[in-house]
Amino acid sequence: VSTVVGHDPRTGQPVGGGVPHTSPADLDQIVAAATAAAPRLAALGPVDRARLLTGLADALDVAGEDLVPLAMAETGLGRPRLVGEVARTSFQLRLMATAVLEGSLVEAVLDSADPTAAPPRPDLRRMLVPIGPVLVFSASNFPFAFSTLGGDTASALAAGCPVVVKAHEGHPELTARCTALARDVVSDLGLPSGTFDAVYGVESGPAAVQHPGIRACGFTGSARGGRALFDLANQRPDPIPFYGELGSINPTVVTPAAIAARGEEIAAGYVGSFTLGNGQFCTKPGLLFLPAGHGLDGRLRELVGEVESAPMLTERVRAAFDTGVGSLADRPSVRVIAAPEASPGRPGQWAAPSLLATSAAQWSSDVEALSQECFGPVSLVVEYESPGELVAALSLLEGSLTATVHAEPVDGLPVADLLAVLDRKVGRVIWNGWPTGVAVAWAMQHGGPHPVTTNALHTSVGVTATRRWLRPVTYQSVPDALLPPALREGNPLGIPRRVDGVLVLP
Amino acid sequence: VSTVVGHDPRTGQPVGGGVPHTSPADLDQIVAAATAAAPRLAALGPVDRARLLTGLADALDVAGEDLVPLAMAETGLGRPRLVGEVARTSFQLRLMATAVLEGSLVEAVLDSADPTAAPPRPDLRRMLVPIGPVLVFSASNFPFAFSTLGGDTASALAAGCPVVVKAHEGHPELTARCTALARDVVSDLGLPSGTFDAVYGVESGPAAVQHPGIRACGFTGSARGGRALFDLANQRPDPIPFYGELGSINPTVVTPAAIAARGEEIAAGYVGSFTLGNGQFCTKPGLLFLPAGHGLDGRLRELVGEVESAPMLTERVRAAFDTGVGSLADRPSVRVIAAPEASPGRPGQWAAPSLLATSAAQWSSDVEALSQECFGPVSLVVEYESPGELVAALSLLEGSLTATVHAEPVDGLPVADLLAVLDRKVGRVIWNGWPTGVAVAWAMQHGGPHPVTTNALHTSVGVTATRRWLRPVTYQSVPDALLPPALREGNPLGIPRRVDGVLVLP
Repeated sequence: VSTVVGHDPRTGQPVGGGVPHTSPADLDQIVAAATAAAPRLAALGPVDRARLLTGLADALDVAGEDLVPLAMAETGLGRPRLVGEVARTSFQLRLMATAVLEGSLVEAVLDSADPTAAPPRPDLRRMLVPIGPVLVFSASNFPFAFSTLGGDTASALAAGCPVVVKAHEGHPELTARCTALARDVVSDLGLPSGTFDAVYGVESGPAAVQHPGIRACGFTGSARGGRALFDLANQRPDPIPFYGELGSINPTVVTPAAIAARGEEIAAGYVGSFTLGNGQFCTKPGLLFLPAGHGLDGRLRELVGEVESAPMLTERVRAAFDTGVGSLADRPSVRVIAAPEASPGRPGQWAAPSLLATSAAQWSSDVEALSQECFGPVSLVVEYESPGELVAALSLLEGSLTATVHAEPVDGLPVADLLAVLDRKVGRVIWNGWPTGVAVAWAMQHGGPHPVTTNALHTSVGVTATRRWLRPVTYQSVPDALLPPALREGNPLGIPRRVDGVLVLP
Repeated sequence: VSTVVGHDPRTGQPVGGGVPHTSPADLDQIVAAATAAAPRLAALGPVDRARLLTGLADALDVAGEDLVPLAMAETGLGRPRLVGEVARTSFQLRLMATAVLEGSLVEAVLDSADPTAAPPRPDLRRMLVPIGPVLVFSASNFPFAFSTLGGDTASALAAGCPVVVKAHEGHPELTARCTALARDVVSDLGLPSGTFDAVYGVESGPAAVQHPGIRACGFTGSARGGRALFDLANQRPDPIPFYGELGSINPTVVTPAAIAARGEEIAAGYVGSFTLGNGQFCTKPGLLFLPAGHGLDGRLRELVGEVESAPMLTERVRAAFDTGVGSLADRPSVRVIAAPEASPGRPGQWAAPSLLATSAAQWSSDVEALSQECFGPVSLVVEYESPGELVAALSLLEGSLTATVHAEPVDGLPVADLLAVLDRKVGRVIWNGWPTGVAVAWAMQHGGPHPVTTNALHTSVGVTATRRWLRPVTYQSVPDALLPPALREGNPLGIPRRVDGVLVLP
């Protein structure tokens, strides 16, 4: 049996003995178990569903101390970052539990019979129900928060769907450990074992997307891989929703007034943001629009020079980074602000941050090549001569996860116009902040127009991520005892509901 | 210039002089106008948006008297039915207006900064914004309610999206009249002319789906046509959401107790439902599961014989109906309950209702052939010997828009088990009623699992149909004056919002 083996990016050495590839027969069995578990999970009341989520959070917090060193070995990410990521992941599971208990996620709507409507209306009661087994592709760059027990899993379980995780090749041992932990929680709660499992090996990804038992997919990863899987999902005899979050260029705009007021602070924030996690965030600011003559080159060079070089997640990511930085630097219009050498002689996948620059005019004439996301610690400064040139340049941007504006309360630039151009293109608009750091909240939106996601109507972070795994069902004139509790007379679950068009709080 | 000409199904004669085919250049211009209108419409406050919807409703009601005869000529549908459909269509526009004013559709969520969250949370405010120009394919079978100013159009305008209607070849003159009426309302309200327009000709459908300016599509029609357009939408460089409602078999189950209590009434309801609108409804009950020995053959034959034969919508629909009925009747296991001749010697596309029957055992062994939707006045009775055989048969069903159960308050059959099998497969479960007649309401669900829609997460009827045309945007730490009114301090629009996780009513 061949295995999936992770490698320590700091040393290039294998980590552990590897996890066996999932065979087609094993995949069948795992999806069959998930399919069998689906009605049990769907019928679970909010209290039991919340208990599963908090049980996973508790187990993850307890195991965090043990899991972090393994995650460090498989990903090369630092301890503080990974300790924080465990906390984020259990926080996310707990927030989903509170949302399940609150009850709005099922969007309960009751319309009593109305013979005066056109056509006459019978008694109608509508709610959202789980879509069935969900396939979650884990991401390499967040081995906890966007992986085995990350946002896609938490939201799918909150929706009442069984989860099959496609393990990322970058951290198979960690995936196996988290899966075992989750399966123990599931078993301790007396839930069906098909509630949660994982599959391993590159081929198991496309095979699972095409498996008849899988009803929806969540994916965080590259544009190319995501599009290929999206196409498979849509080419099925029975197409299924595929939610791919595919990376983003994340434009950031700084006005002259902001530079004048706090140029140094902005420079430090920018370098901190584009090198955070070694630049391996989908919210990394890949473009910074600065007024020409900003005078920050020297300071930016210093700041970039102070960033410690760090290993990248995998050899493939490192190779793509080198190619990407090379292509950018080779464009005739691009100059280098800072490009220190990676710690020389280090084994593994060490990479050093790079900062490049060009003019808005040149950027605009070469926009396709100069707006490609390059995963890793690199960013491009784009220098604009006038507000008009800036707005024209921004209008050329494709979709992004985020757009950021740094401006002053009284600013020479038409900031409302800037926002109006940007908010059509992105899922999140940030004012005087940085796009890295995606809070887990009811109000978060992590997604955006093409090319950053395959479906701009949804988010992969935050409470409403659950909506991806729910479909509506209406019960017409069904006797109370046969209705799901969320729709019964007297509101036995005590949840917010819309009754005859009016929202009613419990 | 070639034209699209409708034909009177009652006579086979052309209706009017035809409407010119839309050229590729005209399509470009129409989509460009829609794209230009999009920001204006998106910025419209709820009062102005509601005014557009009620303006359209008023204009349609006024024009109804004139439009109904034209609709009769182009579709062959009867006057009372079409008068009712106009009322339904204007009711739908007005219901959308009340929902826009109520404000929940934008799903406003405000989370204040929380430094104790993991990671710390900045001030985040999220709402849904319009996705951009929407392409609406009108359906042949509802020339008002699922056509030019029907549910897709009403929900897209309610969402704040410009609409381009692809006219159905079955009623081009009516489409042109409704389009002119709508453009007058748009103009009278001072809104941009790109708010609403229509395109004509078979080729303009795929061309519009692939047009870069179109951001989403709504479709009601055949499985084959819908799937082809769905594939085009997904194969775009920038895939767009395609909501296809593709027809459905709509199983209906009757228990022995219900037959004993009200067999005659059920027979009459069934025949009324499957022949309503000449069986040209996507909610037509195509399968009726009856207990073997129901003894209703004679009564059903009588009832079917009493139904007046009527012309079908188009020659193509009539031809597909003949083929479909023929294929069903040719299956070795199928017997004919009733198959009166269509009014002999009538020109046009007259069709007569047919009722066929088979056993549950035979149906189960030939399920694919015997569960194909056949558009028109035909249905198949499936006779089951035992509750176990019934549940086993139902578990073979694919997705449907609806499933119906006729049972008694005290019933020998395990009705909860029946519902548990059925509600996984459908969008609407009906108790002691009939699936035809789709009320327009907050609680309606018109959609369902494959193969009946291309996206089971949404509805094409009812208020929440708007969700298909909206995407989320989050504003992080953006100053109040620069926020959309729905997200500002003090709730200036007076709408329901979620604040720090808690729903707050205005």
